[in-house]
Amino acid sequence: MSGLRTDLYELRMAGSYLRRGMTERATFSLFARRLPPRRGFLVAAGLAEALTFLEQFAFDADDLSYLRDVGGFDQSTLTALSTIRFTGDVWAVPEGRVVFADEPLLEVTAPIAEAQLVETGVLNLITFHTTIASKAARCRIAAGDAQLIDFAFRRTHGIEAGAGVARASAIAGFAATSDVEAAHRYGLVPSGTMAHSYVEAFPDERSAFRAFATDFPVNPIFLVDTYDTPAGVWAVVDVVRELGLTGPLGVRLDSGDLAALARQTRAILDEAGLPRAQIVASGSLDEHVIAGLVEAGAPIDGYGVGTKMGVAYDAPSLDSAYKLVCIGDRPVLKLSPGKATLPAPKQVFRDPAGAAGDVVGLRDEPVPADREPLLVQVMRDGRRLDPADPVEAVRAARRRFDAELAWLPEPARRLAEPEPLTATVSPALAALHEQVAARAGRAGGN
Amino acid sequence: MSGLRTDLYELRMAGSYLRRGMTERATFSLFARRLPPRRGFLVAAGLAEALTFLEQFAFDADDLSYLRDVGGFDQSTLTALSTIRFTGDVWAVPEGRVVFADEPLLEVTAPIAEAQLVETGVLNLITFHTTIASKAARCRIAAGDAQLIDFAFRRTHGIEAGAGVARASAIAGFAATSDVEAAHRYGLVPSGTMAHSYVEAFPDERSAFRAFATDFPVNPIFLVDTYDTPAGVWAVVDVVRELGLTGPLGVRLDSGDLAALARQTRAILDEAGLPRAQIVASGSLDEHVIAGLVEAGAPIDGYGVGTKMGVAYDAPSLDSAYKLVCIGDRPVLKLSPGKATLPAPKQVFRDPAGAAGDVVGLRDEPVPADREPLLVQVMRDGRRLDPADPVEAVRAARRRFDAELAWLPEPARRLAEPEPLTATVSPALAALHEQVAARAGRAGGN
Repeated sequence: MSGLRTDLYELRMAGSYLRRGMTERATFSLFARRLPPRRGFLVAAGLAEALTFLEQFAFDADDLSYLRDVGGFDQSTLTALSTIRFTGDVWAVPEGRVVFADEPLLEVTAPIAEAQLVETGVLNLITFHTTIASKAARCRIAAGDAQLIDFAFRRTHGIEAGAGVARASAIAGFAATSDVEAAHRYGLVPSGTMAHSYVEAFPDERSAFRAFATDFPVNPIFLVDTYDTPAGVWAVVDVVRELGLTGPLGVRLDSGDLAALARQTRAILDEAGLPRAQIVASGSLDEHVIAGLVEAGAPIDGYGVGTKMGVAYDAPSLDSAYKLVCIGDRPVLKLSPGKATLPAPKQVFRDPAGAAGDVVGLRDEPVPADREPLLVQVMRDGRRLDPADPVEAVRAARRRFDAELAWLPEPARRLAEPEPLTATVSPALAALHEQVAARAGRAGGN
Repeated sequence: MSGLRTDLYELRMAGSYLRRGMTERATFSLFARRLPPRRGFLVAAGLAEALTFLEQFAFDADDLSYLRDVGGFDQSTLTALSTIRFTGDVWAVPEGRVVFADEPLLEVTAPIAEAQLVETGVLNLITFHTTIASKAARCRIAAGDAQLIDFAFRRTHGIEAGAGVARASAIAGFAATSDVEAAHRYGLVPSGTMAHSYVEAFPDERSAFRAFATDFPVNPIFLVDTYDTPAGVWAVVDVVRELGLTGPLGVRLDSGDLAALARQTRAILDEAGLPRAQIVASGSLDEHVIAGLVEAGAPIDGYGVGTKMGVAYDAPSLDSAYKLVCIGDRPVLKLSPGKATLPAPKQVFRDPAGAAGDVVGLRDEPVPADREPLLVQVMRDGRRLDPADPVEAVRAARRRFDAELAWLPEPARRLAEPEPLTATVSPALAALHEQVAARAGRAGGN
C-alpha cells in the first residue's frame, strides 16, 4: 500500500515529528462520536483490512520523488520515510461484535509519526466497513429466516468498494454475494440469476428460460418480470415440465407490488406442482421494505439487496474520529465544542447478560466483576497476532455477530426508532478526564 | 482488471451466449431513470475510469480456475473466456457535461457476451463518479468565489474510493485534495494543514505553531480551535511576529459557530496587521452550510469539504440502469412497471442557448437545427479514441464543467428545491418505441 495513501497533513505532521526527533509513542483512539439517525447499534467491521493496510504501508522511490516535488520535505525526512514501517501495537473490538457511541473500536499505539501517517487509511477502512455491516445487520434482522443476497456491486462507490460491501454484509449474515471476485477472495457463496437483457436477447421468454435451464441446470433462478409476471411464471412452469427438471429452482421478482406478485407466483407454482420452487425478490429493497414484506406474510424465500445496503443509503457514513489520547506517558484530550475527547488508552466493559449498559474505562484498570472486556490486542510491534486468512477472518466475524444478535437488547435492535445503549464512564476514567481537562484549559491560551 | 470483477449473473449470461454461438452485437444504454431528490442536474463523470476498466478486463488462469470451481462453465466456455477482451464501441457524454434523467450517459455496442460481462464495472464506475461530481458541483455553486478543498479521504467508501472522490470533485471545480496519492495520479493540488493531535503533541499551542511554521514555512495553515479559538488566533499572530513570517499563511476553523468565529478571527488578524491571512473553514460542511456562511457574509476564503461530499451523504447513489436497447438490428425494450426503457441507440440533442429542454432521439437521426449532440464516440473496436493521460482528462472535464455552469438554467442550478430539466423524446424515437412495445407485448406471454 503506497505511503501516499494518506492525507497531506498526516505527512506534514509526521515530517515535522521526524525532523524534530519526536519519537515518543502516542496512542490514538478510533470511535464513533454518535450513532447516525436510525441506528441502534454498530457492527464492528474492517479490522482485518485495516491490519493489512498497516502491514503494507510503505514509501517506494516514486512516492518519495513525488513528495520531493510537493515540497516541504527535506532530505533527512525523505530518508526517514523511505524505511518507515508501522511498528506499533493495536487493540481493537473483534469484527462482528456490536458497539455503541463513544466506545473505542480500535486503538493504535506507535511512535507518533507512524501513528499519524496511518490515520487516514485506518479511519477510512473501519468507518466504511462498520457503516455497511451496520446497515446490513438491519436487513438481517428484518428478513428473519429468509436468505439475504448482496446485489450491491453495480452501485457501490467503485470496484474495490464492491468487495468491501460483500465482506461487510457477509459478516452481518448475508448468505451470498453477486460479486464474484469478492466471493473468491473471502470464501463467500457467489450468487447470480439472469438479467432482463437475457430474456430480451431471445425471441421470447420461453426460449430464454429453456436456454438458461439447459446451460445452468443446477438451481436455476428465472427472472419473470420482463414482460408480465404471471405469464412469466407460467413460462417457467412449461419449461420445467418440458425439460423434466426435478432439482431445486426458483424465480425472481424485480418490480411491481412484490407482496401481491409473490402470492400470485406462489399460487401458480403450487398449482403447477412446484411447491418447493423458491421465490427471490429484488429491486430497491432495504430493511423497511423487507420488514413490510415479512409482516405482510409475503411468501418470499430470499431477498437480493443492492444499493440501499451497499451505500448504506440512509446513513452512508459515520461520525468517526481518530483522536490522540496519550503521548509518552501524558494523557491528552481536546476541548473543541462538540468534539471533546476522553484521555488515555481505554477498554470497554460489557455486561454479557445485556441488562446493564457498557462502561468505558481505562485499559489498565481491573475488569469489573461480571463484565467482559471488548477490546483485544490484535497487533504487536507491527505484526498481527492472529494471522487468520481472509476466509477464516470473515467466518469468525460472522459467528461473533450471530452471538451478538442473541445478546442485543430490543430497544437497540428494533428497526423503527431504535434506542442505542449509552455507555457510561468508569470512575477512574472520569477522574483522569477531570485532571487532564484542567491542565489543557491552562495550556491552551498560553 | 480481473474478469471476476463482475456479477455472477453476467458470467452466466455470457457463458450461455458463448456456448450457444450467440455473437450478435448488442447495444446497452446507461442512464439515470430519475434524479435523486434535491438534485437539479447531474455532472457526467467516471468515463475515463470506465474506459480503462474496459481496456483491462480479462481473465487470468486463477480466475478461470475459480470459475471451474463455481460450476456451470464447461471447458469450451472457459476457453472462450480465457481470450475474451472488450472489442466493442462506446459512445458517451464527455466528463464534466451536465445531464438529466433518461438521457444516456454512455452506450456500449459489442458482441453480446462482452457487453454483458462489463455491465457491472461500467455501471459501478459511472454511477459512483457521477454521484460524487454532482454533489461536489452543488458545493461549488454554494461557495461562489471561495476555494474548495476535498477533505473526504478518511470517510470515503474504502481507500480507492478516496481517489475517485478526489477526481470527481476536481471535475466539479474543487481546487485541491488532501488525498496525496490521488493528487499524484491525477495531477491535482495536494493540500493539508495540521490536526488537533499535532497541537496536543507539543507542550502548548504556541510551540506547535512555531514548530510547524519553521518546518513548513510555505503558506502554513494553523488549526486554531483545539482549545479556544480567539486565543489560538492570537497565538498564531505571536508566532508570525516572532518568526518574522511575511508570505501567505492562514488559519483553519474546524468547530463551533463558524460564521461568528470567522468574523472574530478576521478582526484579530486585521488588527494584528495580517489582512491577507486566509481563513479556511471545515467540519461537517455541505452545500447548505456553505451557502449559509456565504449568505451571512462570513469572511471565509476556503472550505474543506469532507464526508458530506465524499459519500454524497443526502443521495449516495443514483437510480442508474444499463439496459439492452438493440440486439443485432432488432431494437428491444422492457415493459416492467416503473422500469420501462426506450429502444435503440440514442443521441441527446441540446439547445446551447439553454432555453429549450433536451431532446432524446435516435443516434442516426439528423441533428435538429440549432441543437448540439451530447454523446460522442470514445472507443472503437475496444480502443479508446482519445488516449488522454489521466491528468489531461481531468483538466478537460473541469473546463467542460466550467462552461456548463454558465449554461445551466437557474431552476436546475439552485440548491433548494431545484427543478431538473425534463428531456422530451424525438418523434422518430417515439414512433419506434410504439412499434417495438407492441411487438414485445405480443412476445411476452408466448
